[in-house]
Amino acid sequence: MFSLHSAPLWLPFLLFLCIMAEQLFSYQHLFEFTKSVFQKIGCSDAHADTATTSLLSADLRGIDSHGVARLSGYIRLWEVKRVNATPDIKVIHETPSTAVVDGDSGLGLVIAPFAMQIAIEKAKQVGTGWVSVQNSNHFGIASHHAMMALPYDMMGIAMTNASPLVAPTFSIDKMLGTNPICVAAPAGKEPAFVADLATTTAANGKLEILQRKNLQTPTGWVQDKEGNPSNDPHALKTGGALLPLGGDREHGSHKGYALGAIVDIFSALLSGANYAPWVPPFPAYVPMPAQQPGKGIGHFLGAMRVDAFRPADEFKKSMDHWIQGFRLCKTIPGEEKVLVPGDPEREYEEERMVNGIPLLDAVVTDLRQLSSKFEVPFA
Amino acid sequence: MFSLHSAPLWLPFLLFLCIMAEQLFSYQHLFEFTKSVFQKIGCSDAHADTATTSLLSADLRGIDSHGVARLSGYIRLWEVKRVNATPDIKVIHETPSTAVVDGDSGLGLVIAPFAMQIAIEKAKQVGTGWVSVQNSNHFGIASHHAMMALPYDMMGIAMTNASPLVAPTFSIDKMLGTNPICVAAPAGKEPAFVADLATTTAANGKLEILQRKNLQTPTGWVQDKEGNPSNDPHALKTGGALLPLGGDREHGSHKGYALGAIVDIFSALLSGANYAPWVPPFPAYVPMPAQQPGKGIGHFLGAMRVDAFRPADEFKKSMDHWIQGFRLCKTIPGEEKVLVPGDPEREYEEERMVNGIPLLDAVVTDLRQLSSKFEVPFA
Repeated sequence: MFSLHSAPLWLPFLLFLCIMAEQLFSYQHLFEFTKSVFQKIGCSDAHADTATTSLLSADLRGIDSHGVARLSGYIRLWEVKRVNATPDIKVIHETPSTAVVDGDSGLGLVIAPFAMQIAIEKAKQVGTGWVSVQNSNHFGIASHHAMMALPYDMMGIAMTNASPLVAPTFSIDKMLGTNPICVAAPAGKEPAFVADLATTTAANGKLEILQRKNLQTPTGWVQDKEGNPSNDPHALKTGGALLPLGGDREHGSHKGYALGAIVDIFSALLSGANYAPWVPPFPAYVPMPAQQPGKGIGHFLGAMRVDAFRPADEFKKSMDHWIQGFRLCKTIPGEEKVLVPGDPEREYEEERMVNGIPLLDAVVTDLRQLSSKFEVPFA
Repeated sequence: MFSLHSAPLWLPFLLFLCIMAEQLFSYQHLFEFTKSVFQKIGCSDAHADTATTSLLSADLRGIDSHGVARLSGYIRLWEVKRVNATPDIKVIHETPSTAVVDGDSGLGLVIAPFAMQIAIEKAKQVGTGWVSVQNSNHFGIASHHAMMALPYDMMGIAMTNASPLVAPTFSIDKMLGTNPICVAAPAGKEPAFVADLATTTAANGKLEILQRKNLQTPTGWVQDKEGNPSNDPHALKTGGALLPLGGDREHGSHKGYALGAIVDIFSALLSGANYAPWVPPFPAYVPMPAQQPGKGIGHFLGAMRVDAFRPADEFKKSMDHWIQGFRLCKTIPGEEKVLVPGDPEREYEEERMVNGIPLLDAVVTDLRQLSSKFEVPFA
């Protein structure tokens, strides 16, 4: 059946299966392993715990590109001395409702929760708290930090700037990161509203999936190095750029560009972090930008006490009514339901906490290498 | 030359010219006329002044759909008793950094600046101020209110919900308004950064232009009443909907939907205004929704003192550097320059303040009718 003659037909499929093969790991197992690795590079028990919780929240919520798959990337940043495992994270300026945090080049996975806790404490005192962060590194997924506000009946906001991969409308140059925005709002009987979105049409992780599957991107995701529309998922590796949400001017890319710019201003211009094309890259092998107008990368965290506006019970009842309204929408042909922001990620989390987290073989190989290097057991 | 035989060729062009014909009016002239009309319906001198300044800021900044062209629309809302010309606008709840304002069904054009001034005063005291507004009406353009913060070396934020014209991703039902977001940030030598964007691919005003020109919309702007992609600029009149920024799921419309939802939550769920499909319509002839879960429409205004984070001079120098970086970008083929958010509107304002504001003949006719009705002279 699998004669040499028919090889061209089944070979790509077999290769695809090999590349995409997955294994399941329990959250607890991945937690213990990841925490041990962070401890091995010198993180305190508390920092290792916080960093692991931040990082794995991505795997739980189905944002596989931002989870344990990036552990070796964070470790490489530590190896080239761009991540400080024992940072002295501190407030360097504050008012009753604001603060600026210097992350001392630590892991964003630790610094962002620190900053969010300050925002929450300020909100307890004066209604809202807003913390801009300098001298940090990538913080994982924004929603993890924003959702810290929910148990306090607060709305949570989280943003970060990131390595420049995105060309503004009409530009060839890459000037902004995927600069995500997350807003989390508590509800009553319904689960919380959690919107977490990169300000690009598609995140880099989606390009990687198409690369593995050898598929083209839809128009509006990327442009080539001359700024022409492209459908090549490898466009970024050949001088191209991600496009802002909207894709092109006619479809509102100037709005996606403006949103990415807003995130940059809140995260870096207010804090004194690097901004625009001068944000340090995530891959350790990419050299740092020659110019450094600020310190590290920047985040922005906010917390708003709901009852600083309105009794929390009233607000949460209205949120339930709001959410139910969207769930009852008539759907377009072929679609089962209208989703409320946060629905897919919550469903992933519920399922993966029970059944385990699927990791691609390439990720498992990566983790096994970390296991050998740091002498930390891995399944 | 214009024989009957050739009529089909030149007739549409002539019609187009007639429909699109414009006349120029000075800002001062339109200001005096508009203020007098507002006074005629009972607005105090101060309220009429504020409302006129808010409304005409749209004409100055080139957002023609939101300016004096809507004056008769506001007046019709007063005629059907949905706008109160003598509102008792007041704070109904507050903390050091927050407030909720009840607009008493007044003009949003007056209520939003009132709320923004409270946000600014709170920012002076505790670093930031955040005001959610209930019981209001349409507030004109968001940037006018956000930019009130700039002279105080503050960042300004303005949002509003609006009549339901937008279908969330996968929905046939219209559940959200065009729900704009504006963020304004001061710079030093450069003009301020002002991003003001509807969270839809295209605003309703752009559809109106295509209707007049008898042109199709690009794909991704609207869907028909069954939820199919459409290119009909009249789609909204036949049961269709505007689409969230992104256009469809593949191009990130779930992000535009989430952004519109965030604006609704900040503006109405925090304040107790109507939300989602229950937001009152702008046209006075459209009946109010049967269900009224809140009061009027909602806004959200914020002010952040820059020096609550960082010395204002440092911030403004960094903003200058940021802005200059974008101005120096290499452009894609055929494009002259990369714009910084706020550039086009500022250029309109500079030009129109000198040369006058162009109004379509249809708008002039509308204003002449108001002139007769209220016995207020108009050119």
